[in-house]
Amino acid sequence: MARTNLLYAQSGGVTAVINATAAAVIAAARERDDAIGTVFAARHGILGALDEDLIDTTALGADDLGALSHIPGGAFGSCRFDLDPPDRNPAQYDRLFAVFAAHDIGHFLYNGGNGSMDTVAKISAAARARGYPLVCVGVPKTVDNDLEGTDCSPGFGSAAKYAAVSMLEAGIDIASMASSAGRVFVLEVMGRNAGWIAAASALAARTADDPPHIILMPEAPFDEDAFLAAVDATVKRLGYCAVTVSEGIRRADGTLVMEQDHDRKGHVQLGGAGQCIARLIHARLGHKHHWAIPDYLQRAAGHLVSAVDHAQACAVGRAAVEAAIAGRDCVMPAIRRLSDDPYRWDIVFPDVAAIANLERRVPAHFIRADGLHVTDAAKRYLRPLIEGEVYPAFAAGVPDYRRPRLSSVPRQLAAYIP
Amino acid sequence: MARTNLLYAQSGGVTAVINATAAAVIAAARERDDAIGTVFAARHGILGALDEDLIDTTALGADDLGALSHIPGGAFGSCRFDLDPPDRNPAQYDRLFAVFAAHDIGHFLYNGGNGSMDTVAKISAAARARGYPLVCVGVPKTVDNDLEGTDCSPGFGSAAKYAAVSMLEAGIDIASMASSAGRVFVLEVMGRNAGWIAAASALAARTADDPPHIILMPEAPFDEDAFLAAVDATVKRLGYCAVTVSEGIRRADGTLVMEQDHDRKGHVQLGGAGQCIARLIHARLGHKHHWAIPDYLQRAAGHLVSAVDHAQACAVGRAAVEAAIAGRDCVMPAIRRLSDDPYRWDIVFPDVAAIANLERRVPAHFIRADGLHVTDAAKRYLRPLIEGEVYPAFAAGVPDYRRPRLSSVPRQLAAYIP
Repeated sequence: MARTNLLYAQSGGVTAVINATAAAVIAAARERDDAIGTVFAARHGILGALDEDLIDTTALGADDLGALSHIPGGAFGSCRFDLDPPDRNPAQYDRLFAVFAAHDIGHFLYNGGNGSMDTVAKISAAARARGYPLVCVGVPKTVDNDLEGTDCSPGFGSAAKYAAVSMLEAGIDIASMASSAGRVFVLEVMGRNAGWIAAASALAARTADDPPHIILMPEAPFDEDAFLAAVDATVKRLGYCAVTVSEGIRRADGTLVMEQDHDRKGHVQLGGAGQCIARLIHARLGHKHHWAIPDYLQRAAGHLVSAVDHAQACAVGRAAVEAAIAGRDCVMPAIRRLSDDPYRWDIVFPDVAAIANLERRVPAHFIRADGLHVTDAAKRYLRPLIEGEVYPAFAAGVPDYRRPRLSSVPRQLAAYIP
Repeated sequence: MARTNLLYAQSGGVTAVINATAAAVIAAARERDDAIGTVFAARHGILGALDEDLIDTTALGADDLGALSHIPGGAFGSCRFDLDPPDRNPAQYDRLFAVFAAHDIGHFLYNGGNGSMDTVAKISAAARARGYPLVCVGVPKTVDNDLEGTDCSPGFGSAAKYAAVSMLEAGIDIASMASSAGRVFVLEVMGRNAGWIAAASALAARTADDPPHIILMPEAPFDEDAFLAAVDATVKRLGYCAVTVSEGIRRADGTLVMEQDHDRKGHVQLGGAGQCIARLIHARLGHKHHWAIPDYLQRAAGHLVSAVDHAQACAVGRAAVEAAIAGRDCVMPAIRRLSDDPYRWDIVFPDVAAIANLERRVPAHFIRADGLHVTDAAKRYLRPLIEGEVYPAFAAGVPDYRRPRLSSVPRQLAAYIP
């Protein structure tokens, strides 16, 4: 295969380690300058590719790449944008391949989740249909851990660690303040359809009485009475109760808890699931209630990255470059678990077309029979993913995230008008 | 002075470093076994003293104290409870001094904020009035930084560091996702009457365009139109805007923003200030909006402790023991700043009676003229307080907070019936 350039882009919600993948892609491609010329990055994912808004990574030195590997967020910008089906909007693909051709791009690496894998599959099929010589590789990334075809997704381990550490620390705080009135703390974490991050908060506990006492996941329908009985029993036993809730929990009828809560006068109470659950407890059981919603903090916590997650984020980046050079079109380097303890894993290459747009949810055998916590099997799965610490350098009291200067590539085409 | 025992207790909202103070108190008292016998701790603050619910710290080894120094929360339990005035409830003081006498307590160290200093002043006055030989020392602690008589309060530096790091990381995340639609992120931090933690989030920024772009503090009346104009200008310039808001911001008429927001149908929208501010922006400017409420996470983050804060927490603990042995009744060891850069400080001993129940708010010269950010003077004050990192040991992916086993002291008195 002729030596061509490589285009890398980031897509979807960003993570604490997506830039570790980016840095690994660039470093691995440089080592193979027999096969790969320049490494370009698109600004804001596929939007930058369409807009010919490209960055030349050549100017990034080894120090820049080392720093990049520990910066949260998406250094090249991300987007939430799906390509149209090729038959419905061929002009969109005309443009994309015109950009690829103008910059001699023969390898395209797209770093994202389920939707991004769909983009990979579409571009791969369109390239084949047009006879454009391109190898498309998907690179996994999602804090939600809902990608199929991989044992876990880079980004999840660090979000999981954040959830476990946060529940551990807030749990110690609330235990200090326990009083006869009863106190309840609710931690709302990300997860609209999959409760993986909520499940991971279970790793805060060493004993059965440690927080979190209850974990609510979207996979287990929310039963208000059973939940309140469990809260009540916990408060009676310990004086307090700590609950983790996924933002997307639903009742048995499918309605979201976060949208449907009403106060006594019938007014809709807007707010997240955590707030609704905390208020429900207060209204029905009378306990003092606090809730936390870390929101972006949980997926951007570069100061609390899991070493395993960071290593896997680097590994999928390197493996993606190797797959691209080997001409393995439309695959995704994925984590395969070889053993739980000691934790061992390697990289496999499932077909992207078979996993795009699927959503891997927490399986039934990871959820306790009453739907209010996880099983030991879940903890065995989750535990290794949060192992180890990778600290960023600090300066003046905060992480020294030195975002690299990005050199734009001169445009060669006319402006894109979608 | 005769060798007597020392009673230490924790009060009010706990912090990430209050146990560092506790460990320092115990270690310092042991070094002075010429003057101090046993170090007792009361469970749940003054409530434990009244209830004769005491812990004998003798069994804690050096390893236990080393571990204790890095555990967030209150290891001996805290409370929110004010003693009655001595003339209104003399029986309460009869009980307290009966407990003190039963356990030969000649030194009482109370670790808390404004309200706790009032307790110190009351007990000190009552002891003198009764002729009970007691030295009472207040030990400062509050994430709110609102104690008078000290340049800063142990606990604040770590909460401030948490706010700055969280804003830095979430700001990088939101910048990655910037789009033409405009995106807004709101971080709500603690502070009902004092905006110190919100102000500290300013330390996330290196340049004028870095988050946080706007800081709302209770000391500056909330002007909706001026605020929205600033958000709009920031989004037009950068594509996004990050805002820090104290939970207790108020309008010029004194009403809390968090309580008084109404939706279009006139329903009261309950929820925190962060949620109200984010919704207001969405409703008025149409931007995508996210908000985070770290709640307890910001005061319990033992994994992100400021080294300066930890050192000061230890220093006030040691100084309190020295003051007690020296017979300096009704004082509080306080931080005195000697210089900003390099940061130098020492310990002074203001009179507790002069500072109890006061509330130190962010001064006018720390708030920008438009009320929407802090001044350089504020940053000079704040910067040293978040300096340095003290990491806890980790095990299995989370901090290895080994809470010590606590040995209860056998009760010698009849049960307390208030």
